[in-house]
Amino acid sequence: MKIGYLGPIGSYSYEAAQKYKKDTDELKESKTIEKVFSSLENGSIDICIVPLENAIQGAVVDTMDTILENRDLNIIDEIVLDVHHMLMSKTKDSTIAKIYSHSQALEQCRTYLNEKFADVEKIPVSSTSYAASLAQKESDTACICNAICKDLYNLEIVSDNIQDMKDNKTRFIVLSKSKNIRETKKTSIVFSTKDEPGALYKILGMFSIAEINLTKIESRPAKTKLGDYIFFVDLEGDEKDSKIKLTLENIANLCDEFRILGSY
Amino acid sequence: MKIGYLGPIGSYSYEAAQKYKKDTDELKESKTIEKVFSSLENGSIDICIVPLENAIQGAVVDTMDTILENRDLNIIDEIVLDVHHMLMSKTKDSTIAKIYSHSQALEQCRTYLNEKFADVEKIPVSSTSYAASLAQKESDTACICNAICKDLYNLEIVSDNIQDMKDNKTRFIVLSKSKNIRETKKTSIVFSTKDEPGALYKILGMFSIAEINLTKIESRPAKTKLGDYIFFVDLEGDEKDSKIKLTLENIANLCDEFRILGSY
Repeated sequence: MKIGYLGPIGSYSYEAAQKYKKDTDELKESKTIEKVFSSLENGSIDICIVPLENAIQGAVVDTMDTILENRDLNIIDEIVLDVHHMLMSKTKDSTIAKIYSHSQALEQCRTYLNEKFADVEKIPVSSTSYAASLAQKESDTACICNAICKDLYNLEIVSDNIQDMKDNKTRFIVLSKSKNIRETKKTSIVFSTKDEPGALYKILGMFSIAEINLTKIESRPAKTKLGDYIFFVDLEGDEKDSKIKLTLENIANLCDEFRILGSY
Repeated sequence: MKIGYLGPIGSYSYEAAQKYKKDTDELKESKTIEKVFSSLENGSIDICIVPLENAIQGAVVDTMDTILENRDLNIIDEIVLDVHHMLMSKTKDSTIAKIYSHSQALEQCRTYLNEKFADVEKIPVSSTSYAASLAQKESDTACICNAICKDLYNLEIVSDNIQDMKDNKTRFIVLSKSKNIRETKKTSIVFSTKDEPGALYKILGMFSIAEINLTKIESRPAKTKLGDYIFFVDLEGDEKDSKIKLTLENIANLCDEFRILGSY
C-alpha cells in the first residue's frame, strides 16, 4: 500500500507514518498538505496521514478545510504522537540570527522563543523537516524540529523540549477513499446548524438522550458569513451501530449540512 | 487617548483604528500582537485594537491566547471591517518569484494563489503592511495587502479582490484595563467545562431556559491535554442586566474556569 505524508523525510507526519506503516507499505512524501490530498484524489497513493490537531495550538486549519472540500474522503484511523520540539543548528554554539520552523511548531514554542530569542526573526516554512534542511545549508540559522532530524540533516541540539507544554501531543488522521469495514470505537462528524436560537443545544440534547458520549466539539468558520460556524464532533461508537445510526439520522434533519467523516 | 494597533501603517488593524479613533486620539503602532498587549499592560497606550476573527480563516489564535493570559483586560468595543485583499507589486507586469503577506491573508486567498501562483513561494510575515514594505524594496516580489498600501508603499495593483469569499470581513476588538460603564448590547465570556459527560449541553441549557441568545460559540484547546477545550461565547445583553448576571453566576458554578471578557 502507498502511504502519502507531509514531507520531506523527518517531519512529524513522517514520524507518524513510520509508526503506522507495515513492512510491505511504501511511504510517499508531498511538499504541502494540499498536495498530499491531491495525490490521494488522483490515486497515486492509497491512503494519507495528515495532522489534525495539536494539544497546544489546536486545529490544523489546512487539514480541516481540505477535508470539508473533499466529500469522498473518509477517516479510517488516527495516530497520536508525542511532540517534543528541539532547537537545532549546524554547530551548537553558533550565533542565531533567524529560526525556521513550521508555523505550528513556532507557536507551540512561543514562551521559550519570547524568553530566549525575542528579537530573532522567526520564519515559518512548510514543514519542520524542511526547516531542518535550511538550517543545514545556512549559517547563523537554527530550526525547530524533532529528534529524527538531528542525524538526517547533520545538526546539533541547542536546546531540548522547548514547547510550552511538556506533555505535548499531535493527533494525525489516516484518510482513504473507502470507508472502514472493521468494527470501530469512534466516529467523526461535521455539521452546520440551522440559523435559529438553540440549534446547537437541541443537537447536543439528542446525543445526551441517546447516551452517546462526545469526546470532542470544535468550531470552524462556515465561510458563508462572519458568525456562522461548522462543528467538528467526535463521538464514542461506530456509525454502523443501530442507536448511533438512528441518532445521527435525526440530527442530520436538524442541520443545514451534515456529514459523517468516518468511523475508526 | 493613545490607541495601540498592529502596524506598520497601512495594516488592516491600522484601518480599523482609523475607523475607531476620534480626532483627539493618537495612534501608536507595535510590530507584533504581543507587543500591542504589553504596551497596554505597561500603560504606554490606553486601549488597543487587535483582530479577533475572520470570516474565512476563523480565530486569530495569537489574540485569543493572549487574552486568556491577561486576566485584567476587558473588551470594551468591536469593529467589523470589510476585507478586500489585493495582489500588489512594484510594477504591474514584473515577474513574481515570491509573495509576502500575513499568514491569515495568504490563507484567505488560498484558491486564487493555488490557481495563479501554485509554484511561487509564499512567505508569511508579521503584517500585510510589512509585506507591502518588503514588496516596495525587493524585485520580482509581490504582496497581499489592502488598498491603503498602494499609495503608502508606492505599489501597483496586479489583481483585486482575490480572497476566497467576496463578502470577507474581519472582526477587531478594542481592549482596555477598565470595564465599560455605558449600557451595552453584547457580552463575551470564556469558560472551560468540568470533565464530565454533557457538561457543555447543561451550560447551553441554562442559556436556553433564561432565553439568552448566543451569537457565537467557538472552541480553543485548553493546553492541559489533547481533547480539553476552552469555549469563547458571545451573548446578547449586558453583564450588568440582572437576568444575565444571575445566569452567568449559575453557569460559573458548572465550570472549571469562567471569566467575563467584557460587555460592549
